Parts: sequence; structure tokens; C-alpha cells
Amino acid sequence: MSQSETDARAQLLIEFFDLAPMKHTFGMVLSYDSDGNAHFEMPHQERFQHAMKDTHGGVIATLLDNAGWFTAATRYDHWVNTSEMTVRLHEPANREDLVASGQIVRAGKRLCVATMEVRSVSGRLIATGSGTFVVSSKPISPPQ
Amino acid sequence: MSQSETDARAQLLIEFFDLAPMKHTFGMVLSYDSDGNAHFEMPHQERFQHAMKDTHGGVIATLLDNAGWFTAATRYDHWVNTSEMTVRLHEPANREDLVASGQIVRAGKRLCVATMEVRSVSGRLIATGSGTFVVSSKPISPPQ
Amino acid sequence: MSQSETDARAQLLIEFFDLAPMKHTFGMVLSYDSDGNAHFEMPHQERFQHAMKDTHGGVIATLLDNAGWFTAATRYDHWVNTSEMTVRLHEPANREDLVASGQIVRAGKRLCVATMEVRSVSGRLIATGSGTFVVSSKPISPPQ
Amino acid sequence: MSQSETDARAQLLIEFFDLAPMKHTFGMVLSYDSDGNAHFEMPHQERFQHAMKDTHGGVIATLLDNAGWFTAATRYDHWVNTSEMTVRLHEPANREDLVASGQIVRAGKRLCVATMEVRSVSGRLIATGSGTFVVSSKPISPPQ
Repeated sequence: MSQSETDARAQLLIEFFDLAPMKHTFGMVLSYDSDGNAHFEMPHQERFQHAMKDTHGGVIATLLDNAGWFTAATRYDHWVNTSEMTVRLHEPANREDLVASGQIVRAGKRLCVATMEVRSVSGRLIATGSGTFVVSSKPISPPQ
Repeated sequence: MSQSETDARAQLLIEFFDLAPMKHTFGMVLSYDSDGNAHFEMPHQERFQHAMKDTHGGVIATLLDNAGWFTAATRYDHWVNTSEMTVRLHEPANREDLVASGQIVRAGKRLCVATMEVRSVSGRLIATGSGTFVVSSKPISPPQ
Repeated sequence: MSQSETDARAQLLIEFFDLAPMKHTFGMVLSYDSDGNAHFEMPHQERFQHAMKDTHGGVIATLLDNAGWFTAATRYDHWVNTSEMTVRLHEPANREDLVASGQIVRAGKRLCVATMEVRSVSGRLIATGSGTFVVSSKPISPPQ
Repeated sequence: MSQSETDARAQLLIEFFDLAPMKHTFGMVLSYDSDGNAHFEMPHQERFQHAMKDTHGGVIATLLDNAGWFTAATRYDHWVNTSEMTVRLHEPANREDLVASGQIVRAGKRLCVATMEVRSVSGRLIATGSGTFVVSSKPISPPQ
């Protein structure tokens, strides 16, 4: 893809994410870098804490999933589906705001493998993940 | 553990979960069977949908994490931490309410491995997972 | 599949495995149960030991891969490829002979997910795994 | 660790690997770069082929395991054990010789997480993996 195509696809996916109710529930903000890799920001929210009063691991897994999916989605003309994902939790979030990003390992014809990471805004490595995204037969079309 | 010890531990963990803000945000209900395996119920909620208007995979990962963690936690006198988790998504939730459960594969001295599954209330297998939970040095104590 | 079809497929895959040079190198013996689940036996061999003089984890991963692949392969008319696999090592083999088996979690149209386990002949749980097998466009045909 | 300490540890682990019967069976050669990351070379060998006459995925998993383990082992004064490993296979080896390498993601007090990759000598990305290595209570001592 040319840079302008990558940028257009990124813009489309940002608009698409805006339609996701969960975006607003989690307060996640999506942006793309010039390589077409997705970046998410998410402020700490008390309502996503576990009983020990820190960010629940499932929320971190949600960030990893999004970072991988939205990175993979820029490489295909069809929608992708998360097939499987591995999550490794390294440090507690300590109630910090979080940032997540994705990177392509291999974009094959039918399967895309990506790695993802979540960091605290202070730069600590909170979690890493990797996942397989299956390319569907449903063409990407602008949100309606 | 005797049955009454297992039941007492289960009761303690249910009370503990009640302190988790995320329990109320996700609307998750925890119960235990007589083997000490955790079961969760979660009603479908529009605010956890992705842009295609079905339950987001991160929510399903959150159910798997909880099902594994709360099952592992019954086997130890110290808190456990989720170290890593594998998530495989088999079918879309189709906006159904979900149930999740955990099962111990091996409860070692320092590491506990569990498998988990999420089903729709109609019985479809939505996702399976497995995870490693590390036993910490912090003793379990009743919520205060 | 009918029982006779399952049995015929199992027989074909056993003949196919006999063509694998690695079968003979590792000394693995494949059989199938009546559900079409693959079982492997492998005698301990000094030459597959790591420096601490016990069976190398990679050999155990090889058993898991085979157990999953040969179980998945009975469900399709096309060859499958291992896409990804998770391996969890629970106990050292202690130089025991090993047995492995696979089980289908979900056999979808394009992807098959299976779980696998390796036990020592004395019954200890050495390792568990799970994997995704992608259905290829290449029809299964008898070995030539 | 200082550079000379890293180099000394690397040298010790190379000598240790030389005691592994599997090293000689697989024909694997271990070296370290100046960061203490392990690199393996393995020539193609017909006896490790599957029935389709290409390198078996279990052999590739064995390379990933070694690359992660020998990288993690340089960071600790005690032996580590592979706890779990994720393997993703991207392309067939096409009977090429293989090279593998490891990289630390996070070296914690009790757990070390590493990523690993296997490439063909021509540079194709054959497989990627990640794993958790548990630090044991057994001090590393020179091979005897």
C-alpha cells in the first residue's frame, strides 16, 4: 500500500472504531502511526478495577486484542477476526493510564500474525501479547 | 481440602469478588460448584459491543481470566496472579448471555495451570482458554 | 463420519505416518481410538536428552504437535497445517516412556482447534497443549 | 552484568550444551551475541522430516525452546525451567538449514519471558514463539 492508501485505511478504521459502544465504555482512543500500526490510549478508570483495586487483566487483554486487530485490519481489503491470542502479564498497572500498540509479524493471505504490547504512560511494560487474525470473505466497507 | 473447607474458601472468594468494581461494571455473577470450580454468568450488554454490534473478544477474555483465576484461587492459602493466558475464540457470541467456567489442570507448589471455557446460555462453545497462575507470598485474608 | 469411515481414515493416516522419516528417528508409534483421536507412544531415548539427562522439552512439544495434527487430520478431506500451538510443561519426564493423545475442541470449516496431552507411562501428566490447525486446499490422498 | 560476565556465562552455557545428547542428535550449534542472546544453527536433516518430506514442526519448536531457554539462562545465577511456550508456524522450512535466536522481554525475579524466532538461512521467517522460564532454586554450576 502507498502511504496515502495506508492513511486512508487508518482513517476509515478510526471512524469504524467510533461506532463501537465498547470504545466509549472503556474510554479508548485509537490513532495510527505512519506504518499503519494501531495505538490505543486508555485512562485509568476505577470501574475496571479488580478487588485489589488495580486495573483488571481482562481490560489489558482487551487493549492487546484491539491493538492487534486494528493493526492487522489495515493490511487487508476484508474484515479480519481474532482467532487466538496469547497474553503475558508482566507488571501491575498500578492504576496508571495505559497505552497499547500492535506490530505485524507476518501478513499472509489467509492469516495475519501480530504482536502487541501494553505500557503504562510512565513507560513500564505491563503486558505483551501475540495473536492470529483470520481474513474473512467480507469486504471492508465504510461505516454507514 | 475437605468439602467444608472448599465451600468456605468459595464463600470467601465470592465475598472478595463483590469488592471488585469490575464485577458490577460487567455484571458478572460468580458461583462455585462442589469441586471448587468457578462459574461466571454475564448478561449481554450493549456497551461491551464492538463496532459490528456483538460482544467484544476482550470481554470474553475477561471472563476466561476470571474463570481461571477464581478456580485456581480456591487451591492455595496465598493469592495467585495471572501470569499468562491463551485465548481461542471459536464462535461469535451473537449477543447471547454468557457463562464461563474453570478447571484445574495441575496445581503445583508455585504455579497453577487451569483451562477455561465460555459458552453462550444456549450452549454454544464461544471460547476456550488456558492459563498459568503464579502463587504469591501474600496470604489470603478475608475482605475487610 | 460413520465408524467405518473413521476407521478407514485412521488406517490411511497410520500408513501416511509410516512414510515420515521422523517417525523412525523418534521411535513414535501411532494408533487411533474409536473416536478418531490419535495416540502416540514413544520410548525414552538417551539421544533426545538435554544436558541434565532427561527428555528435552522440544521432544514433548513434537509429541503434542503430532497428537493434535493426527487427531485434526481425521476430520477433513484436505490436509491440515499446524498454525500455532501452546505448550505447557508440568513435570519432568524422568526418563520414562511417553504417551500422547489429542482431542478435538472444535472442528470448524477452515480452522480446527484441538487439545493435547503427554503422560508418562506411569500416568503422570507431563505436558498439555492446544493448537490451531488450518485446513488446506490440498485433498488427502493415499500415500504413493 | 558486565560484558565480561556475560561472555563468561555464555561460554559456560555453550560448554553445558555440549553435554546434551540432543545437541548432537539434532546437529545444533549454539553461539551468543554480545547482548547475551542465544543463536542456534541447525542443518537440514532428512531424518527430521514429516511424511511430506519437509522439516517437522516439532523440530522448529525444539529450536524455539532452546533459543528462549539459553537466552533466559544467561540472566540468572540459578537454572531456569521452561514453563510454557507459544509456537506460531509461518512458512514451511522447504528443507533449508535453520537459524534461531532469542530475546528477553522481561527478566523478573521468579519468571523470565522471552521471544524467539526461527529463520531459514535464506532469511525467511519460518516461526516465532514466546515463552515463560521459571527460575529454580538450583544454582548454576560449571559442567563436571
